[in-house]
Amino acid sequence: MNALSDIVAQPEPVASATSMRCTVADLRRAVSLASSVVERRNTIPVLGCIAIYPQADKLTICGTDLDQMLSVECPAQCVEAFGAFTLEARQLAMLLRGAEAKETVTIQREPEDKFGDVLSIQIGPLTLRRRQLAPIADFPAMAELPDAPEIRTIAEGSLRKMLDTCRPCISTEETRYYLNGIYLHTICGKLTAVATDGHRLALCRSEQDWPLPAHILPTRAVTTLANLLAAGGDKEVSVAGWTAPRMRFQGDGWTLTTRMIDGTFPDYDRVVPKPGDDSYKARAVLAPALFRRIPPGITDFGSAAKLDLAAKTMSVISHSDGLEASLPIEAEGKISIGFNIRYLHSFTQAYGTIHLQINGSGDAAIVLSEDPEFLGVLMPMRVA
Amino acid sequence: MNALSDIVAQPEPVASATSMRCTVADLRRAVSLASSVVERRNTIPVLGCIAIYPQADKLTICGTDLDQMLSVECPAQCVEAFGAFTLEARQLAMLLRGAEAKETVTIQREPEDKFGDVLSIQIGPLTLRRRQLAPIADFPAMAELPDAPEIRTIAEGSLRKMLDTCRPCISTEETRYYLNGIYLHTICGKLTAVATDGHRLALCRSEQDWPLPAHILPTRAVTTLANLLAAGGDKEVSVAGWTAPRMRFQGDGWTLTTRMIDGTFPDYDRVVPKPGDDSYKARAVLAPALFRRIPPGITDFGSAAKLDLAAKTMSVISHSDGLEASLPIEAEGKISIGFNIRYLHSFTQAYGTIHLQINGSGDAAIVLSEDPEFLGVLMPMRVA
Repeated sequence: MNALSDIVAQPEPVASATSMRCTVADLRRAVSLASSVVERRNTIPVLGCIAIYPQADKLTICGTDLDQMLSVECPAQCVEAFGAFTLEARQLAMLLRGAEAKETVTIQREPEDKFGDVLSIQIGPLTLRRRQLAPIADFPAMAELPDAPEIRTIAEGSLRKMLDTCRPCISTEETRYYLNGIYLHTICGKLTAVATDGHRLALCRSEQDWPLPAHILPTRAVTTLANLLAAGGDKEVSVAGWTAPRMRFQGDGWTLTTRMIDGTFPDYDRVVPKPGDDSYKARAVLAPALFRRIPPGITDFGSAAKLDLAAKTMSVISHSDGLEASLPIEAEGKISIGFNIRYLHSFTQAYGTIHLQINGSGDAAIVLSEDPEFLGVLMPMRVA
Repeated sequence: MNALSDIVAQPEPVASATSMRCTVADLRRAVSLASSVVERRNTIPVLGCIAIYPQADKLTICGTDLDQMLSVECPAQCVEAFGAFTLEARQLAMLLRGAEAKETVTIQREPEDKFGDVLSIQIGPLTLRRRQLAPIADFPAMAELPDAPEIRTIAEGSLRKMLDTCRPCISTEETRYYLNGIYLHTICGKLTAVATDGHRLALCRSEQDWPLPAHILPTRAVTTLANLLAAGGDKEVSVAGWTAPRMRFQGDGWTLTTRMIDGTFPDYDRVVPKPGDDSYKARAVLAPALFRRIPPGITDFGSAAKLDLAAKTMSVISHSDGLEASLPIEAEGKISIGFNIRYLHSFTQAYGTIHLQINGSGDAAIVLSEDPEFLGVLMPMRVA
């Protein structure tokens, strides 16, 4: 790799009275987070932009899709007279992509420009001139919220785990919009998360006391939050909830305010099968390795996987491909039952080796993993 | 990762009187090579298949797109009575994807099947049943060729280098079909390869004596060959050419027979600028690192890069993005000249740091790289 610096002496950035400076690494991180909430296609130009608010020793970078607003801080040296401005989110992220982490980014207003909306951006040796697409005054602001009645802190790792556990079961069906998210509520005063699409359900318990109102966190906010939260991290995240469906999550250098889904989550507890006194009649163990062997064409189209527990095999028939595949599995009992193979696959992808507990070929099955806080439910599928 | 073998004892494959066996690794390699020439979409089912011809200790696996036919050998133990058969190329490749390299593949004919066209394929613990899509009799065969008047051998590494050097300049324009390939011919009795799309040209010389007829090797065969030939390898490849536009390449365990483009390659020599006695007026050096800094949106749409050699800068204006970018470059001379930035980018990607030798802003530029066997030509573009 020929570094550009081999052939070109890098100019020393000049601090001007109207400039702001930061490193590529800091700006790249903040821009990539803030632009993750910006929608890819917008009819209103300002919604494709991020707003950058310079302060003495930092920038606050904001992105929004009108349902959620994320602000991220980025260390920087700014001249105070340098007012806020907007830049197209994806373009800025793209401009920063080729630069090296330790290089300096300098943004200046072009002095000869009478409207003050042409920016000159210096990224290492690259000089760019860019007219602002939209004035900062057009950038939407979230409505002011009253003080939250109660604020909770939770370790980022444990919040992230709840989101990751429930995400695979979120519905994408728009007619039942109240299923397009994760239901954060309490069971016996402890925070519990649930997602379901009517065919499968994932529930994640926690030991966290939770006095905040129950709310459905929309899928887009789930994605944003999972991006922001480090897996296994123990930094505190403060969470504020209002009865108006709105929540605010605040971590180290970032704040996410999001509208919640305004609807009622169904009473999912009715579909979770309760083991009888003599527990379950049959069980099967499915490892992730099993599904790597199933031809991808079959899992894509959601054929049924037939578990013949007596014969200890899982078999799949794809009529479109003219293929019949069968694999040995670990099982106990005599039931023969079918499941959508795509659901089984996504469960093993998300939760590792799963244990299915089955009472009958027409009943929902309980799914357990190695994680004692997880409980899954899977509806069966009729097979020939 | 949970290996499947942890939970399921792997059945020992049984050698039957009508079976053939090989390892996953060998079959995967051969199938992936042979299916690389099979077209993705076919109206005739047999053209989406590969033909497998069992012999005592090997399989010969053939794929074709009617213009080229590739056969690859795969070590195997076969029962002689096991006749040739066809299998859908991409499906077989897909079935082998999830298996482990050291596992055994056993293919049998189902004994109860009276048409003899249902195959049972055992890949490790996975059992598959598959009806043959097309009888082997339908599989096309290449026309028999007369004995080649002369056969040459060439080191695979040096053939691969010629193809890699010329590939970036092959035209994709179908109206000038004779440019859709690499022209293999001789200069002073030595093998030389050239490709051009009318805007740029790449030429690669070699020290190889070459008595075979001059031919245009089509793009698809170039791709196949580049796949088969190891970069830098010194194994011998034997090449046979006929005056009828047909060539055969034969390496270690594979044979590729391909139709050549039936057309006349233009007299490219006329466009290659000859340096005058006082050599070139200006030159510029462009490193690959330079183009990593140019925003991808700009290079995608093929804007012009303006090289201002006096100011030692390269600048690009993208009107659609409202962006002006400029970068310092190493240069000598006073000319200002424009090039399609996508061509400059692809040249640096393919050849590393390039040296442009320029005589005037309307003249073709010579492109040199660190490789003395390479010569490039690039036509300029008018810039404001």
